[in-house]
Amino acid sequence: MKKVAIIMGSDSDLPVLESAIKTLQQFDVPMEVRVLSAHRTPVEAADFARNARANGFGAIIAAAGKAAHLAGAMAAGTTLPVIGIPVKSSTLDGLDALLSTVQMPSGMPVATVAIDGAANAALLAIQILAVSDAALADKLEAFRKENSEKVLAKDAKISAEYSTK
Amino acid sequence: MKKVAIIMGSDSDLPVLESAIKTLQQFDVPMEVRVLSAHRTPVEAADFARNARANGFGAIIAAAGKAAHLAGAMAAGTTLPVIGIPVKSSTLDGLDALLSTVQMPSGMPVATVAIDGAANAALLAIQILAVSDAALADKLEAFRKENSEKVLAKDAKISAEYSTK
Amino acid sequence: MKKVAIIMGSDSDLPVLESAIKTLQQFDVPMEVRVLSAHRTPVEAADFARNARANGFGAIIAAAGKAAHLAGAMAAGTTLPVIGIPVKSSTLDGLDALLSTVQMPSGMPVATVAIDGAANAALLAIQILAVSDAALADKLEAFRKENSEKVLAKDAKISAEYSTK
Amino acid sequence: MKKVAIIMGSDSDLPVLESAIKTLQQFDVPMEVRVLSAHRTPVEAADFARNARANGFGAIIAAAGKAAHLAGAMAAGTTLPVIGIPVKSSTLDGLDALLSTVQMPSGMPVATVAIDGAANAALLAIQILAVSDAALADKLEAFRKENSEKVLAKDAKISAEYSTK
Amino acid sequence: MKKVAIIMGSDSDLPVLESAIKTLQQFDVPMEVRVLSAHRTPVEAADFARNARANGFGAIIAAAGKAAHLAGAMAAGTTLPVIGIPVKSSTLDGLDALLSTVQMPSGMPVATVAIDGAANAALLAIQILAVSDAALADKLEAFRKENSEKVLAKDAKISAEYSTK
Amino acid sequence: MKKVAIIMGSDSDLPVLESAIKTLQQFDVPMEVRVLSAHRTPVEAADFARNARANGFGAIIAAAGKAAHLAGAMAAGTTLPVIGIPVKSSTLDGLDALLSTVQMPSGMPVATVAIDGAANAALLAIQILAVSDAALADKLEAFRKENSEKVLAKDAKISAEYSTK
Amino acid sequence: MKKVAIIMGSDSDLPVLESAIKTLQQFDVPMEVRVLSAHRTPVEAADFARNARANGFGAIIAAAGKAAHLAGAMAAGTTLPVIGIPVKSSTLDGLDALLSTVQMPSGMPVATVAIDGAANAALLAIQILAVSDAALADKLEAFRKENSEKVLAKDAKISAEYSTK
Amino acid sequence: MKKVAIIMGSDSDLPVLESAIKTLQQFDVPMEVRVLSAHRTPVEAADFARNARANGFGAIIAAAGKAAHLAGAMAAGTTLPVIGIPVKSSTLDGLDALLSTVQMPSGMPVATVAIDGAANAALLAIQILAVSDAALADKLEAFRKENSEKVLAKDAKISAEYSTK
Repeated sequence: MKKVAIIMGSDSDLPVLESAIKTLQQFDVPMEVRVLSAHRTPVEAADFARNARANGFGAIIAAAGKAAHLAGAMAAGTTLPVIGIPVKSSTLDGLDALLSTVQMPSGMPVATVAIDGAANAALLAIQILAVSDAALADKLEAFRKENSEKVLAKDAKISAEYSTK
Repeated sequence: MKKVAIIMGSDSDLPVLESAIKTLQQFDVPMEVRVLSAHRTPVEAADFARNARANGFGAIIAAAGKAAHLAGAMAAGTTLPVIGIPVKSSTLDGLDALLSTVQMPSGMPVATVAIDGAANAALLAIQILAVSDAALADKLEAFRKENSEKVLAKDAKISAEYSTK
Repeated sequence: MKKVAIIMGSDSDLPVLESAIKTLQQFDVPMEVRVLSAHRTPVEAADFARNARANGFGAIIAAAGKAAHLAGAMAAGTTLPVIGIPVKSSTLDGLDALLSTVQMPSGMPVATVAIDGAANAALLAIQILAVSDAALADKLEAFRKENSEKVLAKDAKISAEYSTK
Repeated sequence: MKKVAIIMGSDSDLPVLESAIKTLQQFDVPMEVRVLSAHRTPVEAADFARNARANGFGAIIAAAGKAAHLAGAMAAGTTLPVIGIPVKSSTLDGLDALLSTVQMPSGMPVATVAIDGAANAALLAIQILAVSDAALADKLEAFRKENSEKVLAKDAKISAEYSTK
Repeated sequence: MKKVAIIMGSDSDLPVLESAIKTLQQFDVPMEVRVLSAHRTPVEAADFARNARANGFGAIIAAAGKAAHLAGAMAAGTTLPVIGIPVKSSTLDGLDALLSTVQMPSGMPVATVAIDGAANAALLAIQILAVSDAALADKLEAFRKENSEKVLAKDAKISAEYSTK
Repeated sequence: MKKVAIIMGSDSDLPVLESAIKTLQQFDVPMEVRVLSAHRTPVEAADFARNARANGFGAIIAAAGKAAHLAGAMAAGTTLPVIGIPVKSSTLDGLDALLSTVQMPSGMPVATVAIDGAANAALLAIQILAVSDAALADKLEAFRKENSEKVLAKDAKISAEYSTK
Repeated sequence: MKKVAIIMGSDSDLPVLESAIKTLQQFDVPMEVRVLSAHRTPVEAADFARNARANGFGAIIAAAGKAAHLAGAMAAGTTLPVIGIPVKSSTLDGLDALLSTVQMPSGMPVATVAIDGAANAALLAIQILAVSDAALADKLEAFRKENSEKVLAKDAKISAEYSTK
Repeated sequence: MKKVAIIMGSDSDLPVLESAIKTLQQFDVPMEVRVLSAHRTPVEAADFARNARANGFGAIIAAAGKAAHLAGAMAAGTTLPVIGIPVKSSTLDGLDALLSTVQMPSGMPVATVAIDGAANAALLAIQILAVSDAALADKLEAFRKENSEKVLAKDAKISAEYSTK
């Protein structure tokens, strides 16, 4: 199976990314987790992107805060799908990272998920791999069904407790 | 080759989507273009999503403005990658559509591109198909190189005209 | 009397909804409280909306955060009045939910109240039922008068304490 | 049948309100159209609100721009449902009117629709009257169905023209 | 001397207003402190405004949060200068109150100060009274001078501690 | 009668200020109209502020766009009431000027009116002078009444034309 | 004299940059004008930055719109001062470019000027060169004085025309 | 070596500035740290700016919150490069200070860094001095390299811990 890369611009982003790591583990999708900065290690970041397809990756997840250039820098170096996670920092509630990640110029898409939306970034990477992997697609369907059932169970409980008798 | 769906919430979104249609044509990627509204034709929209994988689609592009629920509604009905294009409308400069598209709850990712970023949505769909299609990946590389060369040509021209002699 | 539905997209929204539940109880308006997700249980959500009028509901209150599609999904399935409560989540201070709820396209209104404005959502539902229920309208007038008197009592106390003698 | 009031804060808001007037006419719902300003004619505005229920109204639509207090002022004077239309003015793209209309304090709901969403305001008023008027509810269902069919017709046309043959 | 009115829309705004009360006390300006709600006690609020000039007031300070209509309601009822304090509430960081207070329509000015800027509201009221009261103007100059000297003292201390020796 | 100063940061702000000039003329309030920049002529601006009270001014209106420091610079130099008009420029729809004008630090109030709200700035200046000038207060009341009557006339006309017969 | 680089991410940014080019010409500061994209020509952009100091540059001006990474990419490659111009594009009024340019992570400053503030970017570059170039500093002072005199001339004209005689 | 000035508008900004002070110390760049308010000590602030070049300064760092005029006031008084730090205060998350600092009118640049970006402000000042100081430029390169190596070390550690074995 192709691998998924999880790249963070700073190790301070690691707590946000834990749900992405767990989700990939849960689906048995192999991953490489890296700290690569578009600004502090631009050469290493560019190298990673340029070689990612040859190195067996199928999607790259990039998480960064503030003027979040990491996903865009990855996108500039590869034609693999790049998934951007805008990370909330101490000011502006993540709006800066969201706009820096999603508003990419024509020719260089970044598949942006919600602010701090790491679990969804991992699910999106798995969905991308599942386009040509029926077994993985089946796992996604099972995961969806399980989530639906959790909601239905909560519905039954809350409805019983709060609805007018 | 798997098909790409381009779904718009209203036919008034068609002008925004023209660059997506052209891009898919340029890469010879088969597509189906549809008008399906999460609100006005919810049954048809849900049917489309539920059957999309079986019907040979590899990715779904959904474009909508204002309280843009279309991409999310697609995501709710399929585990295929769903790409959301927030469309600018007459008020709030597209911010409403951007937030309605990108801020999806955990479990339901939408791969969001820039406001009115239809060409990038198509490129992202092609990148997704290219994960398991080496020939398509080569086309993407060639397209990138061509774009680079256009920039370099403009650089040469503008540098010659404006730099101090 | 017609019933009011209180729908939440996730059981994590329950604390926000408690003032809605209490308000309906205070007015003896029968209610059904449900957890139904536009994304995780779209079929159940659509079923609920489609059958709501026949099942004796007079208004539907829907609360959701982030890309808040729940009220819109309800509105797509019924012509009963749908009241949307945008719920504040961990980023963007509720602005995403507000815009996702209020900026509905033409043909599909959602009666939106303030961010986390659950008590007002319940009052609005009661006001809607009271259009054709004079006794309920009288209760609303009494509630208003009681609230005015509370303000007047506080005015007397604070004016006495802080105004220049 | 109960009447619907359409109140504008200034006659300059009339063009925005035309779709509300047309929608009410289309459903044969009787209406009264008024210019009443929360700031320039506060006494007349308060009188209107206080007497609205006795005067046979079932819902009040209030449209205003900038620091849009009109809907709130109506809500302060009646327990009828008040529907607020935030009107876009020359600066801030309607955000000021949206927040001034929707962020009402507890006890005083305003059912807010989209910026310049006059047609939806009228539909919401009709939905409110239809809670206790089965014939009107049937008309709403027919209107919905007609709208769906328009979307389906456009879907057929655009799909035929743009989908890959 | 003319009095200054401090009006709050809810007694929960009292902590924000304490610096206004202290400032007026510090300048020996007589005040009346009131709880009057544009929505919950609209009649009392309108009465206060209409009679304020006759009752010896020279300026009215009105503080409210969210869809902050109180200052506007005061302005609608008097031609005395009305000073608006937008109060920060639990969502949107005071932006809703700021826009609801400052974006008044032509003909009805509200002199708006910063979010939670109660001390400045009191100073502005004093400045207004001081236009025709030379002794009060002298006090304002003395207050300014004192504030300058505090800054200069801090400057001396911090410069000595941190500047390169 | 005390004079009102109208200061603009750039002569390009003159069109915005025309309604302020007309309003002061309409009330026969003497004025001085100046171009003084907090940044380009800081010495002249500071001189004007420092001498304004002695030179017979009762209020200063300052209009500026973008990082609008002019009103704040005036406030720093005088204890007269300073009224700030945030001017909309080519980007950000006036939000930059609004925040730069209204969010003044404690000790230095600026009485801020709506973006481009020049007529209201003039009315506020007149209201300030009218605190100690009963004749001017009477003129303000007459102006208000006239405005009310204009609204009532429009109400009669529009109500007759659009209300259901 | 050291040179100033003007880099644009796309030749469509050239009209915005014309005032920067003119300003540098006016001060006889040598410049190189380039089209280099952080995304489409990342290698050339990185090469330019890495060699800029050795190639005789004293400052780099970088202009880009939307998710504006160009200035940050320059900053990542050089320790010369990098000046960022956020360029307004078709949506969001330049806010995306502003936040993408200014919110740089610790260790990588970008000296950001106003949205579309090209003339100021050039002036800032000249100010930087003038720190060690007294003749250039004198030119800056003369330029300032000339600008002040223009304002004073306009002040005289407008004051004469509009002030009360 | 030329000195760097660090100016704060209030001593409450000192904690934000500590990283600027440390950075300058780390590079052995002489500094003067001052409390000077554009509003409370305008004369002293203007004097400082006017004499800064003659007093041996090469750059001025100015930090302020809310309607942050301090950097602009410095820029008005000197042609030295002025670096603005927008400081986050209790409301609006620093957006007010950012716009008040960066949106300077033509002719008066302020080199703005991120909200609370004090370390970057110091680095930018050092970069400016280093344009004509090769030894300082070498220190900056060494500092960069050190930062890169820290990232690489974290990369090795995190990659080893989290990547799929």
